[in-house]
Amino acid sequence: MRLSKFFLPLLKENPVEAQIVSHRLMLRAGLIKQEASGLYSWLPLGLRVLDKVETIVSEELEKAGCVRLLMPTLQSTDLWKESGRYDALGKEMLRFNDRHERELLYSPTCEEMIVNIFRTFVKSYKQLPLNLFQIQWKFRDEIRPRFGVMRGREFYMKDGYSFHSSLEDATREYANMYDAYHAIFKRLGLTSIAVAADSGAIGGNLSHEFQVLAENGESQVYYDPAFDDIRDGKLNVTSEQMRELYAAADELHDPAKCPVPADKLRTARGIEVGHIFLLGTKYTDAMNVDVTDADGKPLRVQMGTYGIGVSRLLGAIIEASHDEGGIIWPENVAPYQVGLINMRANDEECTKAAEEIYSKLHLAGVETLYDDTDDSAGKKFAGMDLIGLPWQLVVGPRGVKSGVVELKNRKTGEKVEVSFAEAIERVSATTPKKLAA
Amino acid sequence: MRLSKFFLPLLKENPVEAQIVSHRLMLRAGLIKQEASGLYSWLPLGLRVLDKVETIVSEELEKAGCVRLLMPTLQSTDLWKESGRYDALGKEMLRFNDRHERELLYSPTCEEMIVNIFRTFVKSYKQLPLNLFQIQWKFRDEIRPRFGVMRGREFYMKDGYSFHSSLEDATREYANMYDAYHAIFKRLGLTSIAVAADSGAIGGNLSHEFQVLAENGESQVYYDPAFDDIRDGKLNVTSEQMRELYAAADELHDPAKCPVPADKLRTARGIEVGHIFLLGTKYTDAMNVDVTDADGKPLRVQMGTYGIGVSRLLGAIIEASHDEGGIIWPENVAPYQVGLINMRANDEECTKAAEEIYSKLHLAGVETLYDDTDDSAGKKFAGMDLIGLPWQLVVGPRGVKSGVVELKNRKTGEKVEVSFAEAIERVSATTPKKLAA
Repeated sequence: MRLSKFFLPLLKENPVEAQIVSHRLMLRAGLIKQEASGLYSWLPLGLRVLDKVETIVSEELEKAGCVRLLMPTLQSTDLWKESGRYDALGKEMLRFNDRHERELLYSPTCEEMIVNIFRTFVKSYKQLPLNLFQIQWKFRDEIRPRFGVMRGREFYMKDGYSFHSSLEDATREYANMYDAYHAIFKRLGLTSIAVAADSGAIGGNLSHEFQVLAENGESQVYYDPAFDDIRDGKLNVTSEQMRELYAAADELHDPAKCPVPADKLRTARGIEVGHIFLLGTKYTDAMNVDVTDADGKPLRVQMGTYGIGVSRLLGAIIEASHDEGGIIWPENVAPYQVGLINMRANDEECTKAAEEIYSKLHLAGVETLYDDTDDSAGKKFAGMDLIGLPWQLVVGPRGVKSGVVELKNRKTGEKVEVSFAEAIERVSATTPKKLAA
Repeated sequence: MRLSKFFLPLLKENPVEAQIVSHRLMLRAGLIKQEASGLYSWLPLGLRVLDKVETIVSEELEKAGCVRLLMPTLQSTDLWKESGRYDALGKEMLRFNDRHERELLYSPTCEEMIVNIFRTFVKSYKQLPLNLFQIQWKFRDEIRPRFGVMRGREFYMKDGYSFHSSLEDATREYANMYDAYHAIFKRLGLTSIAVAADSGAIGGNLSHEFQVLAENGESQVYYDPAFDDIRDGKLNVTSEQMRELYAAADELHDPAKCPVPADKLRTARGIEVGHIFLLGTKYTDAMNVDVTDADGKPLRVQMGTYGIGVSRLLGAIIEASHDEGGIIWPENVAPYQVGLINMRANDEECTKAAEEIYSKLHLAGVETLYDDTDDSAGKKFAGMDLIGLPWQLVVGPRGVKSGVVELKNRKTGEKVEVSFAEAIERVSATTPKKLAA
């Protein structure tokens, strides 16, 4: 993509309303624009990252056997009266009447609707297990929306729901999702830890919160030092063994009951990005959901529910990966893999070289943002650092004369002078490929 | 995808509430489920088609130079008071208060918000032209939602908006979008015609509606016979010449003014799926939007706006492409390219052959829905016809013994017996490829 044809409004100044670094950087790097309290537009660069995060979440869940569907953002309140949650959610649930005075709500979560879909179509234990998920906009009318997309009102969420003929099978799927979530966060370039959690308004028997570790995380996390060894590859454990290691956030950490000695216990700051619940029959009891068992008798269905804050993840990734100059995108979610800078758009040879490299990167399937504008070199460098693409490829008049360009790694800051061909080769070899638009 | 692991609830009976064929088939083929009046869930098979349609619309627009972003579904009503449309849209626009009694609306269209994004960031004529689009859920509180996704309340829409420094340049982009829309509908496997249209509540100087031709279309379309020759490849015209040919729908067709003699005039039924408007300064006047020109003086910005009903397109495709047995998906939007039927899941050799073919199709990148259930052959055949995948590949015990399978083309009904290898080769050679999930 040529920057001259793109829409990338960068801000020089730090926006006063942004209190945390990810919010500041998302506004400054032209990823989002606030439209009203807790409501954001995703500008083109931000939308590209959101799409990549969505694709990774979806692909990993499909790999784990989940099936994707999509429910509408609005729904009737009837099912919520049936489940008993109509009153439980209070003012955070946005309710209103349509033109016929029928009450609707903007879904904050979809247990009721999916249970209704399930009971409409699934009648036999033979059709189980089933794990359905969607990625859809949700709304929670937060009393004080803040921190940008980290605590917005309209947010993009992955919500999954599984159905089982026994609690044992639901527990097996809970472990499957526990593993899938770790795979998702790892592929997103994040260090995550699953902590024991309270099941709150969703309900159920067992629950884990997935926290992304980041210096300015909102909660304090306490965990067994073995987690660090697992991450460093020094220790191999099964997923079951991992679930038995101690890990808890603020609210549930009790020093008196913690099995890890205080001097060994590790702590870190974390941002909650996912939550899984073994539900049991909370909703299927309330909504009377049975299938027939092998003998033709009614069998109460067991459930699990699994959420990931997809839009929130962008904030979490930036909190975990940035420096003074701006964002540092992990390769798998970077909006483009390389920023190609033409230092002198008015220099004929320089432009010819930049154009040639741009077209070769395109052919190699490397997603490239090409700064072909006549801005100053200083502005171009600062802009590229701010938006945080993994590689920068700088084409300047001096280098072009000797057939070299400068290749900069955004994360390490390392710069090398290499031939055009080698620059293309290096970038192309180390980045995920997709035909560039 | 194995059918035993998928979620595909097919209906045997015609649902009584469905008055038109696309609505009936979408319910029966397990594509959608109604959740409330005009609100639909997209079941897994339907969502796959919706995704493909979305991808084609998005890719073609990006090819034509448009840049994608995403606005929230909800917005404040403030900008609509500024533009003067707060009162114009009446009860079709869903309005409600949040917990702080601030009025919000569920966007039916986004001229106001995009104009506000534009004026926030774009200050100079040098940044023009700019064509921004989104594909996002919209809501119109139709008084009588009907015909399934053809006239739902919550619907998926592509809305694009372009900004220009002269009316001449806006007119150039209007022609660019006119061509892009034809390319989109062609790639979706549809025959479309652009008719002169009324610009209604959106406003502006010039407008075309894009109608998909289908026997049971909602409107009558009158057009110059040259359009049929263009489609048949008998006549070559420029896009400008095409726009000058006569074509009008019901409301705007005036026999007295029609330049085509009555005996030459062609008519057909059409379904509106897109609408483009040359807006001029309607919104930029109301919202005071200028950029600075080359002399530093204020220049009023010219606009165009361009819509496509993405969810509605699924209904239109089915209206245009079905038979007694069910849907016939055009290859580019088919949820899977081939339905692999194992006629005898309890026959060891038959299952071995089916599994082998399934894994080879997967390796060849052919999206396959594999009916591995123990349903009867008759039920499997009827189900595959109903869901309308381009190819059916039938593995039966008799054929397996002699090393052949039956390959059926859903559209022509043609069946041939071929070797396993040839079946895979044929399907793989004629279908768009994508790594199957």
